[in-house]
Amino acid sequence: MNKLIKAQENIPGFEDIMDAYERIKLLINRTPIISSANLNKLLDAELYFKCENFQKVGAFKYRGASNAVQSLNVKEQQKGFATHSSGNHAAALALAASKVNAKAYVVMPNNAPLVKKEAVKSYGAEITYCEPTLEDRENTLNQIIEKTGANFVHPYNNPMVIAGQGTVALEFCDEMDDLDIIIAPVGGGGLLSGTAIASKYLNPKIQVFGAEPEMANDAYKSFNSRIFVPSVSPKTIADGLLSSLGDLTFKIILSSVDKIFTASEMSIISAMRMIWERMKIVVEPSSAVPLAAIFENRSFFKGKKVGIIISGGNVDLSNLPFNNSQ
Amino acid sequence: MNKLIKAQENIPGFEDIMDAYERIKLLINRTPIISSANLNKLLDAELYFKCENFQKVGAFKYRGASNAVQSLNVKEQQKGFATHSSGNHAAALALAASKVNAKAYVVMPNNAPLVKKEAVKSYGAEITYCEPTLEDRENTLNQIIEKTGANFVHPYNNPMVIAGQGTVALEFCDEMDDLDIIIAPVGGGGLLSGTAIASKYLNPKIQVFGAEPEMANDAYKSFNSRIFVPSVSPKTIADGLLSSLGDLTFKIILSSVDKIFTASEMSIISAMRMIWERMKIVVEPSSAVPLAAIFENRSFFKGKKVGIIISGGNVDLSNLPFNNSQ
Repeated sequence: MNKLIKAQENIPGFEDIMDAYERIKLLINRTPIISSANLNKLLDAELYFKCENFQKVGAFKYRGASNAVQSLNVKEQQKGFATHSSGNHAAALALAASKVNAKAYVVMPNNAPLVKKEAVKSYGAEITYCEPTLEDRENTLNQIIEKTGANFVHPYNNPMVIAGQGTVALEFCDEMDDLDIIIAPVGGGGLLSGTAIASKYLNPKIQVFGAEPEMANDAYKSFNSRIFVPSVSPKTIADGLLSSLGDLTFKIILSSVDKIFTASEMSIISAMRMIWERMKIVVEPSSAVPLAAIFENRSFFKGKKVGIIISGGNVDLSNLPFNNSQ
Repeated sequence: MNKLIKAQENIPGFEDIMDAYERIKLLINRTPIISSANLNKLLDAELYFKCENFQKVGAFKYRGASNAVQSLNVKEQQKGFATHSSGNHAAALALAASKVNAKAYVVMPNNAPLVKKEAVKSYGAEITYCEPTLEDRENTLNQIIEKTGANFVHPYNNPMVIAGQGTVALEFCDEMDDLDIIIAPVGGGGLLSGTAIASKYLNPKIQVFGAEPEMANDAYKSFNSRIFVPSVSPKTIADGLLSSLGDLTFKIILSSVDKIFTASEMSIISAMRMIWERMKIVVEPSSAVPLAAIFENRSFFKGKKVGIIISGGNVDLSNLPFNNSQ
């Protein structure tokens, strides 16, 4: 049923990230790295932001999805691709599949926001709605895979996806070889895993940190207890960071990440606003979690050269968290 | 009283823009040019956006203000600089003055929004509030200039300011020598004048267009009647485009601009939203007027290679025009 399950038993290495880059480099945007003199002054640190909000579909997820799609041969590709996601991964897989003229089947909870349904549709996916329960989601997905033979591409617990996400840090460390720290948001852990593998290889002295909402701190707890803690009904504005870690991403994070920081909801909103106002870029709340964590731990980051991964820029402009009290 | 008045009698030429660039190139950001495959497909044209929202103080105005400040000798600079403005020019002049350790005196109407007062203050200007009438504004400014001997830098009707703004198009045409069209928003006309002078010199075949809100269409009327029409209490969301043309900018625009387009308020908001959503950049309403005009005149721009100047990104995030009905 799960066509990629065998590969999932393997942890990707740096070579897999290099292979991923060869596969996807002509399909993706090489995103810019920007900085803000204002922010650096305010924090007494050198911050560099790698802007995956400028990636295709507006998020780094297009890298992992493209690598998963491109790693199969034409015959396999033509069976199509399936996933469960209401967010950026679904849009990413839909666009990646369309590049090889394959179908994308997406299972989404029927209560997903209209704006997300429409985004996924706009990239050409076939959406099947399910009840908003884990059980119904898995049953619905299994039915689609049995019926169509489509290749399941998990949003993060998949070595091809992890290797694809690792190309963000590959570009980052290629352009800047002297970062003291690289910090990425952590939800399911695909981005953080790929980041750790790539950046530790290219810059052995670098420290790799995850940043997680305090209100969805399952990765923080899992990392510190070294025992998997699931994410149970988390409530955070950082809607890209709701997932639990996977077994694969948990292993990689345990072995290669140095620390996980958390940030409060207030800090996340305030960091997001700061990025919009000072850097003039549109980022989603999940992207602001690393900067929020830095603001909450200023002395730790003082004087350091810090690479921050801005994960995406898909946000509902009709429903922003800014008001006059901030 | 007006220290720059003599120079104002002269219309700047391409050499003045080159001189301006030499003076300010180490002070300004060379802003990126970006495009959106989505938007190009939608409009069946090739659009390139020069992002002055990423300029220092978040707007092209820093170029003109810097040129005015840098063109004086140290003794003149130390008398300080004065202007009347509630917007980007005031912030730009304050920062430009601070770079030469000179004072900036800004006259602002006492009813200006708090967010603008604070922005100007944050760049170190000394603000004097006046009644929101033209008469009181000029009297207040004259008093400050008499008292301090400060150099008056008009927001647009000043050859040094116009030459500075022309460096946007200088960089644009340097990087892209085959644009069919270049289009900039027009308020007082400083940016459009500089754009026309630079781009017509570098690319004689280029067409230079202005874009103006329909609700503040004094430049459109002045251009078409060839008789100066003042802007009287205009009401538009594009708050950077409320001014009347100056005698200098009117002359330049009459002689060097090919056409002025207008755009409705609804088109401006919808174009602004499109830029935020598809390009993931924060732009102020004035910056969206050229794209709005292109949407209202699709057939005119079809198949063309169009350079669009994004003028700035200073917007009050607590008061955005997006809601679910758009």
